[in-house]
Amino acid sequence: MNKYSVSTLGPCSTPSPLSSSTFVDNSDGVLVHNTIKEHKNFEGSTPPSFELAGPREKLFFNPEETTAAIVTCGGLCPGLNDVIRGVTMVLWYRYKIRRILGMRYGYQGFIPSYGHTPLELTPSFVEGIHQKGGSILGSSRGSQPVPETVDYLEANNINILFALGGDGTQRGSLEIAEEIEKRNLPISVIGIPKTIDNDIKMVDRTFGFETAVEMSQTPIKCAHQEAKASFRGIGLVKLMGRDSGFIAANATLASSDVNILLTPEVPLSLENLYHMIDQRLKNSSHVVIVVAEGAGQEYFELDGAQDASGNKKFGDIGTFLKGSITEHFENKGEPVRLIYIDPSYIIRSAPANANDSRYCFQLAEHAVHAAMAGRTKMLISFWGGHYVHIPIEGAIKDRKKIDPSGLLWQSVLDNTGQDSL
Amino acid sequence: MNKYSVSTLGPCSTPSPLSSSTFVDNSDGVLVHNTIKEHKNFEGSTPPSFELAGPREKLFFNPEETTAAIVTCGGLCPGLNDVIRGVTMVLWYRYKIRRILGMRYGYQGFIPSYGHTPLELTPSFVEGIHQKGGSILGSSRGSQPVPETVDYLEANNINILFALGGDGTQRGSLEIAEEIEKRNLPISVIGIPKTIDNDIKMVDRTFGFETAVEMSQTPIKCAHQEAKASFRGIGLVKLMGRDSGFIAANATLASSDVNILLTPEVPLSLENLYHMIDQRLKNSSHVVIVVAEGAGQEYFELDGAQDASGNKKFGDIGTFLKGSITEHFENKGEPVRLIYIDPSYIIRSAPANANDSRYCFQLAEHAVHAAMAGRTKMLISFWGGHYVHIPIEGAIKDRKKIDPSGLLWQSVLDNTGQDSL
Amino acid sequence: MNKYSVSTLGPCSTPSPLSSSTFVDNSDGVLVHNTIKEHKNFEGSTPPSFELAGPREKLFFNPEETTAAIVTCGGLCPGLNDVIRGVTMVLWYRYKIRRILGMRYGYQGFIPSYGHTPLELTPSFVEGIHQKGGSILGSSRGSQPVPETVDYLEANNINILFALGGDGTQRGSLEIAEEIEKRNLPISVIGIPKTIDNDIKMVDRTFGFETAVEMSQTPIKCAHQEAKASFRGIGLVKLMGRDSGFIAANATLASSDVNILLTPEVPLSLENLYHMIDQRLKNSSHVVIVVAEGAGQEYFELDGAQDASGNKKFGDIGTFLKGSITEHFENKGEPVRLIYIDPSYIIRSAPANANDSRYCFQLAEHAVHAAMAGRTKMLISFWGGHYVHIPIEGAIKDRKKIDPSGLLWQSVLDNTGQDSL
Amino acid sequence: MNKYSVSTLGPCSTPSPLSSSTFVDNSDGVLVHNTIKEHKNFEGSTPPSFELAGPREKLFFNPEETTAAIVTCGGLCPGLNDVIRGVTMVLWYRYKIRRILGMRYGYQGFIPSYGHTPLELTPSFVEGIHQKGGSILGSSRGSQPVPETVDYLEANNINILFALGGDGTQRGSLEIAEEIEKRNLPISVIGIPKTIDNDIKMVDRTFGFETAVEMSQTPIKCAHQEAKASFRGIGLVKLMGRDSGFIAANATLASSDVNILLTPEVPLSLENLYHMIDQRLKNSSHVVIVVAEGAGQEYFELDGAQDASGNKKFGDIGTFLKGSITEHFENKGEPVRLIYIDPSYIIRSAPANANDSRYCFQLAEHAVHAAMAGRTKMLISFWGGHYVHIPIEGAIKDRKKIDPSGLLWQSVLDNTGQDSL
Repeated sequence: MNKYSVSTLGPCSTPSPLSSSTFVDNSDGVLVHNTIKEHKNFEGSTPPSFELAGPREKLFFNPEETTAAIVTCGGLCPGLNDVIRGVTMVLWYRYKIRRILGMRYGYQGFIPSYGHTPLELTPSFVEGIHQKGGSILGSSRGSQPVPETVDYLEANNINILFALGGDGTQRGSLEIAEEIEKRNLPISVIGIPKTIDNDIKMVDRTFGFETAVEMSQTPIKCAHQEAKASFRGIGLVKLMGRDSGFIAANATLASSDVNILLTPEVPLSLENLYHMIDQRLKNSSHVVIVVAEGAGQEYFELDGAQDASGNKKFGDIGTFLKGSITEHFENKGEPVRLIYIDPSYIIRSAPANANDSRYCFQLAEHAVHAAMAGRTKMLISFWGGHYVHIPIEGAIKDRKKIDPSGLLWQSVLDNTGQDSL
Repeated sequence: MNKYSVSTLGPCSTPSPLSSSTFVDNSDGVLVHNTIKEHKNFEGSTPPSFELAGPREKLFFNPEETTAAIVTCGGLCPGLNDVIRGVTMVLWYRYKIRRILGMRYGYQGFIPSYGHTPLELTPSFVEGIHQKGGSILGSSRGSQPVPETVDYLEANNINILFALGGDGTQRGSLEIAEEIEKRNLPISVIGIPKTIDNDIKMVDRTFGFETAVEMSQTPIKCAHQEAKASFRGIGLVKLMGRDSGFIAANATLASSDVNILLTPEVPLSLENLYHMIDQRLKNSSHVVIVVAEGAGQEYFELDGAQDASGNKKFGDIGTFLKGSITEHFENKGEPVRLIYIDPSYIIRSAPANANDSRYCFQLAEHAVHAAMAGRTKMLISFWGGHYVHIPIEGAIKDRKKIDPSGLLWQSVLDNTGQDSL
Repeated sequence: MNKYSVSTLGPCSTPSPLSSSTFVDNSDGVLVHNTIKEHKNFEGSTPPSFELAGPREKLFFNPEETTAAIVTCGGLCPGLNDVIRGVTMVLWYRYKIRRILGMRYGYQGFIPSYGHTPLELTPSFVEGIHQKGGSILGSSRGSQPVPETVDYLEANNINILFALGGDGTQRGSLEIAEEIEKRNLPISVIGIPKTIDNDIKMVDRTFGFETAVEMSQTPIKCAHQEAKASFRGIGLVKLMGRDSGFIAANATLASSDVNILLTPEVPLSLENLYHMIDQRLKNSSHVVIVVAEGAGQEYFELDGAQDASGNKKFGDIGTFLKGSITEHFENKGEPVRLIYIDPSYIIRSAPANANDSRYCFQLAEHAVHAAMAGRTKMLISFWGGHYVHIPIEGAIKDRKKIDPSGLLWQSVLDNTGQDSL
Repeated sequence: MNKYSVSTLGPCSTPSPLSSSTFVDNSDGVLVHNTIKEHKNFEGSTPPSFELAGPREKLFFNPEETTAAIVTCGGLCPGLNDVIRGVTMVLWYRYKIRRILGMRYGYQGFIPSYGHTPLELTPSFVEGIHQKGGSILGSSRGSQPVPETVDYLEANNINILFALGGDGTQRGSLEIAEEIEKRNLPISVIGIPKTIDNDIKMVDRTFGFETAVEMSQTPIKCAHQEAKASFRGIGLVKLMGRDSGFIAANATLASSDVNILLTPEVPLSLENLYHMIDQRLKNSSHVVIVVAEGAGQEYFELDGAQDASGNKKFGDIGTFLKGSITEHFENKGEPVRLIYIDPSYIIRSAPANANDSRYCFQLAEHAVHAAMAGRTKMLISFWGGHYVHIPIEGAIKDRKKIDPSGLLWQSVLDNTGQDSL
């Protein structure tokens, strides 16, 4: 078993109830690397691959005796309800599973002292939920005691746990799976990676990301119109993205109205920024700036404080830039009018757009197929055009970032016309 | 001439080029008051009325020799470009006027020292502009010297000035019209009232208001989903509305997901607010609050500072409530999770929705008809189901507010179920 | 009792449970006519008025013993679910009424042989329904036996019937109210007028109409883009409007991209139409035409066939024009490329937009207040800026139409630049 | 040169003006096949790959002397204006090219007898065009004489031709490139594949496809609401897709409200369809059907007629099913109410959504980089997560279809719960 393999609870012997289906061969997979340069490193050896997702002819679990639980953790993300609904529908109609628990408020739902009663998910209960933002299950941040969580699974005869959440959540679900393993329980833990920032390793695209990019277009359009309507107008929009600028970069490329993009991956120089604004105002009388929330943190001295999820607290770069830029040009005797827009939660609490809804259904579908075949300690991922199974462990090691010498950043430069900073 | 009459530059003798049109009789009008109770005050006398808008058979201006100018002032508002386009199209195609100046950046556009050159508006120039937010002319706040402005009109042979703006702008346009009168110039000044707050007297509805209400639905929906997704979650949304709560009240009625509405017209009691939140959280585990920016100003001690338009500076009630509410429940040992959303400019920089676009066209159309018939010192208004001419002077005296003992506030109570505060 | 008065079941003596509310005085009302010209006809006499809507201090029904039923009839319309939800919420929370029946599939719901069981409406049942199009109750066309319907009301102790529907439905609800009167039953029948065409007399605006106009913008935009993208391209869009062109006219004014509008109120001359198209194509290379479905029926010879609601069957003017125009220019040797779009149900099955949602809530709210005060045989209407009570009888006599010599049609001419036809 | 290689006009020696850019190594590429199963076929040999797209350090063309032309052909597709704008902006700002011709109305634009004058594309000309549907250049179907086209290119000193269109258009652009080769001219021909159906070989995703899927959600939602609102209601929606059902399948997965999907790839059996409808109506009282326009063509006998693009004429499956289904159940004495919606052009004339806009920019960007490096007879494609260069010849041989034994169709079955047909 190499580092890209996923774990299985045991041999599969129950025939799938999916008649006339397209069953996937367990031996098929998808190459991890698909460029010539990367591929050359594996000359002479078998190139690494991920297991292909899809329904299996033989199942580990007997549908008639199976109970599943779903939990959503961390911040909201467009598509959570799509996944909840998809998991429920495929379990119910395709595998005829009749006991599906919706755990309330994240991992708190497993801890009796919180007093949250799980929801009983059925097709009629989940009807239409995918057209709403949020999570019908609720969510919470931070971890909960792992042994208590596994006690709950055991006591409630839960065979499959679907955990929707980011790297923190999946770190938690890995710990749960390890505790399950220690107790030698036949419980499958399947993660469905969720991060609005699209920065999980081994995952080409996380659900909700495209919707977040779409939801950021209206704020950028507004900032553009506000900037244009003022002489020497500056529109400044802050977008989510603590460690990486994927939302901000994709929103910029989609908009084509942004002149300067600031992301965490490229160090901020205020002097360069002022210069770029100055140049632009001389040529065009207005400028639009998008800043990812994690950019320019080098300008803050913070005490390493953390929020409830254990994440580092950030300085508010949007408010900082609003003040600094205004003051700089005021002091130069060339005042500007800066309009600052912080859409904050608006981009993440919206319902999924069509492409994300479709994607969420397929993630949910393949999560169910994987669970029924006894896979565990894995995430459902989309990679190189295919749904695949990836080990949680590899995915949570660190996060993806924009490579300032890569083609995405090149596209940003080609689009904004900004200097490289 | 009573206080509801509008001024005219002089007798109309030029036949209208609008063939086979529906010409409005100068003697027709619309009653100012239409309830039985109000109407009783005028028993035995002629009830007051506004002049009916619409094309006139005889014009004051000779289209062949007429130049018009348009200016947009103050904050952005959905529909500005619709009005600019409508005025241009009706002047050009219906009256065959070929010189239409788009003044840049509000009243600054008339002051040579700013160096803003006006745009030449033509049908091809204004094509499609109504599908964008903002103002293609730009805008600015505050007033400019009136004599210089009239100098500009005179020097550039401008016969008609269309001024889009709020009460400050219209106060300015009235001063301009008075200076014109003093100089005995045949220049018509027609105001098109613009306020996103819908609080201009004698105007049932200002353009852009419905769009602003529509644009506030997404933030409220997001706050609702965020609140529901957290145990003891509170969604707090701040909406525009300095002196009146019309946007916030209509957004609340449209949403039906709001539990507590705070507006400037109803004094804020933090104790009552905490109590209402507490009750609601006990019954339902989440609560959604909408606050108009002018609410609760009694909790701030401000030094009477003013912004560029001469408006009073406000304390930030949103941030204040976010802190106060969180702290209050923290101190009680019953913590909440409060999600604060401030859509700010997003609700005002958007393009007009269909009904506002239609409305803007008709305001523009009737502004042109009024100007061609030599009306001046007036605003185009919609009143009791009709487009009418109203005197600027009466409209700018004070602002409309929500009457806490009226039927709109009753609807809010019926909708939110909140106590009367 | 004059022709604008509404009927009451009897004296009101139960105190309203709405504490500290704004109670409306039964003697207040809203003038039916508010222009000077109309008003002159009533000099010396009391001008006619409608009763003002709103909560009353004394009720006819005792909330503790009251059962209400709601029914939706005829074609779908944006906002049906808003009204259903509004009625339910106000009955439940403001008047503490606990038995609210949602009748299934229109008037069929009262006829036992159909076997449709009513829904029990509660706040949790109606949660979020207003964000969806359609009607959660279902609907059907056509009438049902009135005695059987009243038998059902009687047998089920229903005290209030809210009927949402167009003039056919309200004709039915009037017959039901008359049968109730004959049997001397204390049952209130309150109609909430519904017609996507906005053509009900004594009603300034029907709910859903503005949304329908908004939903027609995308098809018109598409037709415009398709027409522009082809040399000699013609975009033709058919919109709802059998007897009147209100949707088509308002959609045209909102769009400002339409060059020719055809409605039922203005007779169609194909020769004039071809001429207008020809002129336009010579100047601009493309043309956009909007046609209301009831336009040009003089070109069809139909046998007077009727659909299930008893409405006259119409010839398909869209397909007819598509063929005729294409053929005409083909024959002239000057071919065109005509793109035909028929959005059909898309404009009526959508959820209500913000302004319609707000409006629906207020209609629902005032319908409940009226019912509790024992009003019957009436519709809730919006007139001259106020919610009022109007007698069903007057409203269903005939339908509103666009006056080709009125100001709305003048706006269409000013907007499209088309000849008067 | 293998079958996946692209042609080059000659050696590149001009240094790129893109300073501090990420230049792509000409030797890098992307594997054509990335599953284990496919990959096994190439054991021991070099697996086939596509050339990686991106800016090159050395150019074939000298920007100062380069003229580019852009043409859009065939039916409209969301994103055409995004690509036109992207190509213009990257040529202008990154490569400083100042002569960019926008050819009018497809390949007609090159044929003098049509009299279409090309547009001069500049940044200010293309400002904001990407927020509109359609193509500012216009389009036309069908081919034009290739020698005349190349005469035009030669006479007008055009060095680069960007051709946006489907397989027909690209067949044309290949012929143009071959004529150019015959004449030994240094003119690059770069295709940007455009098909709303997403069925071009060697292209994972065509631009506009996701938007078309998104635009089809409203019609499906409406059909769903209409069907639910009628007892035994059937909502039937026809979507584009002549040879393949990709739009219909993705729209179905995104919606999750569809019960039966009919596509060209799976033969239609009316008997099975009636049976499935019957079953569904017995369980649920309503049913939603989506049909791709090319489905069920076996039920039509057509004479092999062709449209202007040389495409086979199709029977109208939507109208056919509407009639057949209604009649079938009428005859059985179990009538249904069928609501038919044909959104037709609405899904293709819309502006691109955010993700398509972003994608279009990158396609445009890489098309420009490829052209400047002297590539020709190629298409810009997205494959396995990378932008690549693919030979036109390979891409136009035949079209992609849904594999009824593949995982996409499996997802459809998992989503709709329909039998396999």
